[in-house]
Amino acid sequence: MSSIWGEKVKISVFGGSHTAAIGVTIDGLPSGEKIDMDKVLLQMSRRAPGKDKTATPRCEKDFPNVICGLKDGFTTGAPLTAIIVNTNTKSSDYGAVPELVRPGHADLTALYKYGEHSDFRGGGHFSGRLTASIVFAGAVCRQILERKGIVIGAHALSIGSVKDISLDSLNPEKALLERLNSEYFSVINPEAKEKMYAEVEKYRMESDSIGGIVECAAINVPKGIGEPMFQSVESVFSSILFSIPAVKGVEFGRGFGVAEMCGSENNDPYRVDDKGNFVTETNNAGGILGGITNGMPIVFRLAFKPTPSIGKEQKTVNTKNRENADYTIHGRHDPCIIPRAIPVVEAAAAIALMNLIK
Amino acid sequence: MSSIWGEKVKISVFGGSHTAAIGVTIDGLPSGEKIDMDKVLLQMSRRAPGKDKTATPRCEKDFPNVICGLKDGFTTGAPLTAIIVNTNTKSSDYGAVPELVRPGHADLTALYKYGEHSDFRGGGHFSGRLTASIVFAGAVCRQILERKGIVIGAHALSIGSVKDISLDSLNPEKALLERLNSEYFSVINPEAKEKMYAEVEKYRMESDSIGGIVECAAINVPKGIGEPMFQSVESVFSSILFSIPAVKGVEFGRGFGVAEMCGSENNDPYRVDDKGNFVTETNNAGGILGGITNGMPIVFRLAFKPTPSIGKEQKTVNTKNRENADYTIHGRHDPCIIPRAIPVVEAAAAIALMNLIK
Amino acid sequence: MSSIWGEKVKISVFGGSHTAAIGVTIDGLPSGEKIDMDKVLLQMSRRAPGKDKTATPRCEKDFPNVICGLKDGFTTGAPLTAIIVNTNTKSSDYGAVPELVRPGHADLTALYKYGEHSDFRGGGHFSGRLTASIVFAGAVCRQILERKGIVIGAHALSIGSVKDISLDSLNPEKALLERLNSEYFSVINPEAKEKMYAEVEKYRMESDSIGGIVECAAINVPKGIGEPMFQSVESVFSSILFSIPAVKGVEFGRGFGVAEMCGSENNDPYRVDDKGNFVTETNNAGGILGGITNGMPIVFRLAFKPTPSIGKEQKTVNTKNRENADYTIHGRHDPCIIPRAIPVVEAAAAIALMNLIK
Amino acid sequence: MSSIWGEKVKISVFGGSHTAAIGVTIDGLPSGEKIDMDKVLLQMSRRAPGKDKTATPRCEKDFPNVICGLKDGFTTGAPLTAIIVNTNTKSSDYGAVPELVRPGHADLTALYKYGEHSDFRGGGHFSGRLTASIVFAGAVCRQILERKGIVIGAHALSIGSVKDISLDSLNPEKALLERLNSEYFSVINPEAKEKMYAEVEKYRMESDSIGGIVECAAINVPKGIGEPMFQSVESVFSSILFSIPAVKGVEFGRGFGVAEMCGSENNDPYRVDDKGNFVTETNNAGGILGGITNGMPIVFRLAFKPTPSIGKEQKTVNTKNRENADYTIHGRHDPCIIPRAIPVVEAAAAIALMNLIK
Repeated sequence: MSSIWGEKVKISVFGGSHTAAIGVTIDGLPSGEKIDMDKVLLQMSRRAPGKDKTATPRCEKDFPNVICGLKDGFTTGAPLTAIIVNTNTKSSDYGAVPELVRPGHADLTALYKYGEHSDFRGGGHFSGRLTASIVFAGAVCRQILERKGIVIGAHALSIGSVKDISLDSLNPEKALLERLNSEYFSVINPEAKEKMYAEVEKYRMESDSIGGIVECAAINVPKGIGEPMFQSVESVFSSILFSIPAVKGVEFGRGFGVAEMCGSENNDPYRVDDKGNFVTETNNAGGILGGITNGMPIVFRLAFKPTPSIGKEQKTVNTKNRENADYTIHGRHDPCIIPRAIPVVEAAAAIALMNLIK
Repeated sequence: MSSIWGEKVKISVFGGSHTAAIGVTIDGLPSGEKIDMDKVLLQMSRRAPGKDKTATPRCEKDFPNVICGLKDGFTTGAPLTAIIVNTNTKSSDYGAVPELVRPGHADLTALYKYGEHSDFRGGGHFSGRLTASIVFAGAVCRQILERKGIVIGAHALSIGSVKDISLDSLNPEKALLERLNSEYFSVINPEAKEKMYAEVEKYRMESDSIGGIVECAAINVPKGIGEPMFQSVESVFSSILFSIPAVKGVEFGRGFGVAEMCGSENNDPYRVDDKGNFVTETNNAGGILGGITNGMPIVFRLAFKPTPSIGKEQKTVNTKNRENADYTIHGRHDPCIIPRAIPVVEAAAAIALMNLIK
Repeated sequence: MSSIWGEKVKISVFGGSHTAAIGVTIDGLPSGEKIDMDKVLLQMSRRAPGKDKTATPRCEKDFPNVICGLKDGFTTGAPLTAIIVNTNTKSSDYGAVPELVRPGHADLTALYKYGEHSDFRGGGHFSGRLTASIVFAGAVCRQILERKGIVIGAHALSIGSVKDISLDSLNPEKALLERLNSEYFSVINPEAKEKMYAEVEKYRMESDSIGGIVECAAINVPKGIGEPMFQSVESVFSSILFSIPAVKGVEFGRGFGVAEMCGSENNDPYRVDDKGNFVTETNNAGGILGGITNGMPIVFRLAFKPTPSIGKEQKTVNTKNRENADYTIHGRHDPCIIPRAIPVVEAAAAIALMNLIK
Repeated sequence: MSSIWGEKVKISVFGGSHTAAIGVTIDGLPSGEKIDMDKVLLQMSRRAPGKDKTATPRCEKDFPNVICGLKDGFTTGAPLTAIIVNTNTKSSDYGAVPELVRPGHADLTALYKYGEHSDFRGGGHFSGRLTASIVFAGAVCRQILERKGIVIGAHALSIGSVKDISLDSLNPEKALLERLNSEYFSVINPEAKEKMYAEVEKYRMESDSIGGIVECAAINVPKGIGEPMFQSVESVFSSILFSIPAVKGVEFGRGFGVAEMCGSENNDPYRVDDKGNFVTETNNAGGILGGITNGMPIVFRLAFKPTPSIGKEQKTVNTKNRENADYTIHGRHDPCIIPRAIPVVEAAAAIALMNLIK
């Protein structure tokens, strides 16, 4: 198992849904960076559960306790570790022994990999709760990036069949991104948000869940970062983005749309702008050519599967007697993960950028 | 720049379009594995240019010269290095100094990153020719995987608006995958192939190019490989898949389709099969749950952008006088990269699996 | 800064002398390994300060609080994190701003590297206290190794001019190693220990300190681990051994002694033993040939410099006014680090072996 | 097997004593660095065999053929690969099947690790010939370092009982280092060199071999590089230095000498020099405190064991019938590796520094 990611700035994520605590160590931060804990807490609260009906009513207190790496509010250059205590762990909700494995969850694959000593309580180390550590690390990194002018913002592009307006990939406004990255369940078009709420409620009432797409942009990213081959910006981003539970697809710029485009349409024409900079007239490339940034906004999208925890009866297997079985999961679940996933996507992008920028 | 990929089995890719040679070192191979060079050459020929009108008429001889790592046809356990000499390098086709940068290519980003000493000849280290090294490495790895029963096969799922039949994600037949992974421009439905040829020809006649989607499956992958967080199967695969030039999207299982699915539909129900194994009745997960394989086929798709080299006049900038300019690229190009990209995708999958399997 | 070490089993060390806590995450442990916490605490206590006059009278409670990675006493396969709270941190002992930098310490190099926001309190992340994290991680790893029959033991080979008997490099007895690895300040010859106490006391009375050598052996290490080049057993061991504060030299087998030996003397002759195994008649190689183990005991030695914290007046510089200055350090120090360093060396060896063994 | 080393600048070494060629890829070089091939060839020639009676009379042509990564004499930023063809490979000298394993060599450990398909010809990938690749890579790196003012030089500190003058660790003169790093078999005191020749000749006449110590210094290394814990300068250096065949000990500054020193003697007193810089009055630390450079010269020493290939009859085992045997090795060997090891040590230091310097 490797729960460490990054080369220049490494994050080491630890803990599980029902362990004493979860946490994260950020290794490789520059020294002397001021970290505003209120901004960190804002990001933590965007991911925290229990905000509305799209989310589980569990009352997790996602308060990060920084035990080292900060002195008088500044990074020291030494590893920065934060611990988040697990206070509300009702193990009985899930059951310690996965006699019946939950479809769409990692119960069976965990059993294959780790055997009976795996921590199955609430998903253990597979739990979406671990994304709190990613949000914390991203909240630290994005403050350093913001000092360089880089702004990252994401929104719910779609939930089920309901769609938000797509970000203007050529020029996502800084003010818009700043609104998106400070709201809970950020959406560009307020009407879309209302419809999304209705969509989620529909599935919640059916004891079901629904998937969606998160779209994210980062502006003012320096030109010339990334590498031609294996450290392409897409490779580095996708490596951490596919670590977010429930992500099944990642695309940059026009993404899968390029498959039906011709070259004369997809190639972004260059021009010299007012300040003498080289810019493109479109941004189908999502700010990346040959794996390297061209100074245009980085734009990407992630497909999230519907939460596998649903209240409906499902077909499964009994791992003890190796027979077919029916299974109805009880307990508290998010009928849609998208609202809480948005800050996780932004955080992962911030961590990726911290590794790419020299 | 990091042109090295992998943890357990590392590949180090070197060379450029117009250097004396390109090549690859595979580090970490087990010893005593028999490597059939005819099978390697078959894979090299599937990627080689000049097969038909979809491809550039350049006559590159993609012959890999193994200089170490094999003895009497068996791996020694020491690094295996192969060199492919560049014989047909007409530098005049491209021009050494990119006064005008080609839209959709890495000319400008290379200039940003490496400055004037970058090797711009034919795309240099960014050239699609580098994928020959990946195909070689994959051809070695897949022979080792095949001995474990693992079969990997890919096909052109779409070119422009023309679509092939999708692989049966639940049960892609071994015989079909073996046909796909031994053909040039492999397609499931022969009629689709004819239409794809016509589609490419249409764009070629217009001095334009067209994108597409490659779909790939791997069967008999052991259960329980991959990791919950940052070494998820999706993370490892996407990291190398996004290193293939022109890839702008990667998805696993139902991929972006999950965004409009509800949980009761997307969760793959388990059942016990005839042999007492746990299988799923659908394979929306693409063989991966919680980042770990469940023994079902791994299925994924990649979106390739249209070749940026087109014969039409395009808008660009002059990097010397920093003025707008028009640019018509002459020379030899693929109007569609999909046919030659298929073996590259299979090779990358083989390299990824070699790293994931213990 | 990179406070993460290892490939297969990674340890991530965090905290500083005066942060809220220090700790360590062990990533990549196999699941299902029983960990006896009493054995862990025994190792922690061997390193803990305040045992006798060789050590600082500080009363640090080195109690590791495991917050995740263990369930019912078994490893889960998920990252195992332990936190050790810093309870007795008298910041006034050292001073937060290093106007005067301590000779032999990292004060000035920390200032060069991290600037004024570096954590100078008690050495910060450079503090020898961080070795508590290494001892914890090693105490977990060695239990897994012991189940494979591997036993690691170290002793004070010398303190100043006083020497202990050297370990029989050909056949260090298991019982002896087990005695050494469970004692505080382990020495083979009890008389040498008495003389070492006297030696340390002599320097302590002079407000001075003294260096020494730790010798370590590991028996029953499997044959054939390590690599010919960059992952040689010596490379992997030395990489973590030189991370222990105050180590200035590392040698394997006959070490620097080989420089005056001829080949016919240094080459270890092979013979077949009673059980038909290939063994050597001497073990000048320290169990390693070509970077790979040959099944003989791994034997190595480390030179530790005298503790830089001494009570004598020393010449230094004032970093504020950039003038020469005299400096007398007050506070609590170890006049000799060797007694407490022994379990750290064993722990580092255990961590190294966990990474080398497949 | 991992024959790749480095984080920022990676070197990938490939080939064996009797493969078609050996070579190296340097990945991560900055672009636009002028590389003088004459300087590279000078370094290659310092390592090449056949210079005098200390060395094997084999006539290897160590000519590196750069196949990519350089354009018009400048680095392009893409991987730089050089191939050195093996022209004089008389396999009969060594024998392909190691029925009798050579004491002191890696024959038996290679058999343990790689089995019968290992390349035993001339030591295969374990051969000292692989150090030609390291010298090449170091020769490239040192030119980049020299442009920053860094000069690296090494010499034979001892061969058997004959000793050269030690480098002045406080102030090794630039001119001296430049003489040392351009000579074959560099020694500070010419008289010592004569005696060393006599020492080696003595052992050569006895069909024996002799060990020695190489001492190396690097001056003008920037302050503040390295890390407190696992990427300490000593850790990084020792990791690559112990990869050089035959090295059994590595020490920095006073090295093992610190074991008998007291703190008041070993601590290097600080003072302000004429230019207002902080310097030390002694350099027992070898330029490194807390794992980080303090701007003083980096000084270190390596112990090399005597060449295991000797002409005397030795005791060994027959791996086929598992019986004891006598063995006399015929063929061409170096009676002392020290003269040719000197440029390898300098090269490894250059590669290490390229990784440490930002």
